[in-house]
Amino acid sequence: MRRIVYSLFLLAVLAGFTCNQSVAQVKMIPTSAPERPAGQADVLNLACDPIPTVRIAYIGLGMRGSGAVYRSTFLEGVEVKALCDLNSDYVKSAQKTLTDKKLPAADEYTGSEDWKKICERDDIDLVYICTDWLKHTPMAVYAMEHGKHVAVEVPAAMSIDECWQLVNTAEKTRKHCMMLENCCYDFFEMATLNMAQQGVFGEVIHGEGAYIHDLRSLNFYPSEKGGYQGMWRLKYNEEHTGNPYPTHGLGPICQIMNIHRGDKMNYLVSMSTKQVGMTEYAKETFGTDSKEAKQTYKVGDMNTTLIQTEKGKTILIQHDVTSPRPYDRHHVVSGTKGFAQKYPVEGIALEPEAHEFLNKAQMDSIMALYEHPITKEVGEKARKVGGHGGMDFIMDYRLIYCLRNGLPLDQDVYDAAEWSCLTELTETSVKNGGAPVEIPDFTRGAWDKLKGLWFAE
Amino acid sequence: MRRIVYSLFLLAVLAGFTCNQSVAQVKMIPTSAPERPAGQADVLNLACDPIPTVRIAYIGLGMRGSGAVYRSTFLEGVEVKALCDLNSDYVKSAQKTLTDKKLPAADEYTGSEDWKKICERDDIDLVYICTDWLKHTPMAVYAMEHGKHVAVEVPAAMSIDECWQLVNTAEKTRKHCMMLENCCYDFFEMATLNMAQQGVFGEVIHGEGAYIHDLRSLNFYPSEKGGYQGMWRLKYNEEHTGNPYPTHGLGPICQIMNIHRGDKMNYLVSMSTKQVGMTEYAKETFGTDSKEAKQTYKVGDMNTTLIQTEKGKTILIQHDVTSPRPYDRHHVVSGTKGFAQKYPVEGIALEPEAHEFLNKAQMDSIMALYEHPITKEVGEKARKVGGHGGMDFIMDYRLIYCLRNGLPLDQDVYDAAEWSCLTELTETSVKNGGAPVEIPDFTRGAWDKLKGLWFAE
Repeated sequence: MRRIVYSLFLLAVLAGFTCNQSVAQVKMIPTSAPERPAGQADVLNLACDPIPTVRIAYIGLGMRGSGAVYRSTFLEGVEVKALCDLNSDYVKSAQKTLTDKKLPAADEYTGSEDWKKICERDDIDLVYICTDWLKHTPMAVYAMEHGKHVAVEVPAAMSIDECWQLVNTAEKTRKHCMMLENCCYDFFEMATLNMAQQGVFGEVIHGEGAYIHDLRSLNFYPSEKGGYQGMWRLKYNEEHTGNPYPTHGLGPICQIMNIHRGDKMNYLVSMSTKQVGMTEYAKETFGTDSKEAKQTYKVGDMNTTLIQTEKGKTILIQHDVTSPRPYDRHHVVSGTKGFAQKYPVEGIALEPEAHEFLNKAQMDSIMALYEHPITKEVGEKARKVGGHGGMDFIMDYRLIYCLRNGLPLDQDVYDAAEWSCLTELTETSVKNGGAPVEIPDFTRGAWDKLKGLWFAE
Repeated sequence: MRRIVYSLFLLAVLAGFTCNQSVAQVKMIPTSAPERPAGQADVLNLACDPIPTVRIAYIGLGMRGSGAVYRSTFLEGVEVKALCDLNSDYVKSAQKTLTDKKLPAADEYTGSEDWKKICERDDIDLVYICTDWLKHTPMAVYAMEHGKHVAVEVPAAMSIDECWQLVNTAEKTRKHCMMLENCCYDFFEMATLNMAQQGVFGEVIHGEGAYIHDLRSLNFYPSEKGGYQGMWRLKYNEEHTGNPYPTHGLGPICQIMNIHRGDKMNYLVSMSTKQVGMTEYAKETFGTDSKEAKQTYKVGDMNTTLIQTEKGKTILIQHDVTSPRPYDRHHVVSGTKGFAQKYPVEGIALEPEAHEFLNKAQMDSIMALYEHPITKEVGEKARKVGGHGGMDFIMDYRLIYCLRNGLPLDQDVYDAAEWSCLTELTETSVKNGGAPVEIPDFTRGAWDKLKGLWFAE
């Protein structure tokens, strides 16, 4: 069998060499892209009727959900109608968050299928999903099919099929499906987005993002003590390789590069190290003979992915949740006139002095000059409310602001699909020795219709 | 034609999916690896007769060569016998460097074929080559064939064929062929090598290196005013894509990962952005209608390459000589017990506190504790002599020390071939849409014979 594959491939390669650049298209592993159902249109710049008071149901009240409920108490024009989690303590705790603020109590749900009942209610506008990764898409799809707008934690989908489910359901139901990519709302990311949109970096040619965060103790932390419900995150790392969590680093770079707003991601290659970190941690923590130490974990310690865009730009994305090293999202922006990098220290360098980073005083003044209008508007309050330093609140604030005013959301369902699709595509590339894998155009031809990203006001 | 290639490839891919990991081997673009000629053996740990006084000939006296001659005047046990450059002013200037130090004058050569005469002399031990990239291998091969040891600037070879020429000639003639990878001798790189060898980082799983250095003004600087002879570097960027200059970032990481001393690089994938920087610079500097502005430059602004090793580790290498951003060689070392990163600021993080970089005091003490014996021995003098902060002198010092004492050199011909082979292999991958390309084992099966890297004393 192998010999047949090999000879076929050699033929393909040899032939490929004779037709130069075209082979770039030839050698990709193709990715499925279903045709748009008849009578269905894209939801680019989707605007829906204004909702003066947004009635919210929260599904999943663990680490992310409990914080979201807390943040909601600082928002105007919202009403929390339902709180849902398998763990009744989490529901009670979230309920207390509301009643402590003298806000009306929400209905409580703890059944495993209760999330469907919530979606079926007629007095809810927004379903806010903070469950484990594998339930994101089924819940989001069901919610939209029952006329609800959706805000869903990252990644919104864990497979290409799920990405298309989100896109098709949003297009069919004309409902919002926003992935809760909070890192797009961090202060430095928003400032560099603003600078990029104002041409400070010239043409941005290359960008980098990452999720480098030592999660070993959290992944192995027992559910009953407050860890991930059913230790779902550890289980996912047992069963999958590639980059299972790509959106924090990718989102801000895709916004700066106007992905599906003038450019699109064409293909990626991905490479992983072997897995060592989780097994070593399990041995040290639970003993050499523990089931955790003997367990196979498919995820590699470090995954690195390279993406090529239609306009000839590249994006580098990394994922490492086991290596002992400082937290790092990279956020590197390299253009023809300037450069920005967030980790390990925030730095900006601009022509004609780009060989040196701006000094402290210069940084302070340029950060003030290019602070994004949105962080300027709500940043101070966000810092007080908190949530990863404020970015979580800015995200919720924008979501509710746009819904209340009938405006397009900052992140649409195509962003959710594009940023999430790396979960399957990186795994495919890794399993195929780093072979290039096609990234679908989830807008199905409309990637150049919008000219750049803008946040509705 | 394309359709045939496409269907063949699809077959290969579909079949590939059925045999899982094995496809990693299947889908690589193969790279030629000639059999070792009969009666020829590897030159691992090659030691030659001690040379009390090393008689040196310098070929190429431009930017790198002139500095090398100057540094030689601070070395014991050397005698500069010949100075060769097409530019007689450079020869005279190098000669003056010697005579100013009351050292015997060397013979002067300025003819285009004089380098052959030098190699044919019988009173020279070491030919030190600092010419343009494309002459490195022909000169190194000719020198070895005429019984000389060779020190050659980076990259030592610009194609797989040249890499094999160096390896085969070194094995046949039993002469040293050391590539002058000076970055392996920088203080932080040597300290992290020492730390890695002492297990401070645990098992090093992932490493990163780069050559990010804005060379636009240098590449476009006229030869007659002191720029590259015949503007060879600019010409190379006109004709080639991929990463034409990979060794500065790769060398130190390969040493830390014991490449061909217990591990080997198996394959790479490489991706480039479009070219914008050189054309924009040419337009601004020479005018929109200048020949420089109208010239095609094949090299992309940023190239990123991922390498997979036999032991399941990954190496990330970048090249960008046109983007306006601060100089950066990355030098990232990520292990199971600790982490190091050199740019933009030197930082080290170690278990159990690896979530934070060491503070200034901790850094100072660990850098003192793990300073490499070689920089401890000669670092102070090196800083005085200079040459990229001292690393150039340490490199020359070690080269001469080992030759004088009949010891194996720190870098062997396999290092030269492994680090240089990316020039062609990255271009192949980029031209084939990021397809995986096989990296040959230049030791031809002996990559696991040596257990780790050690510097002879």
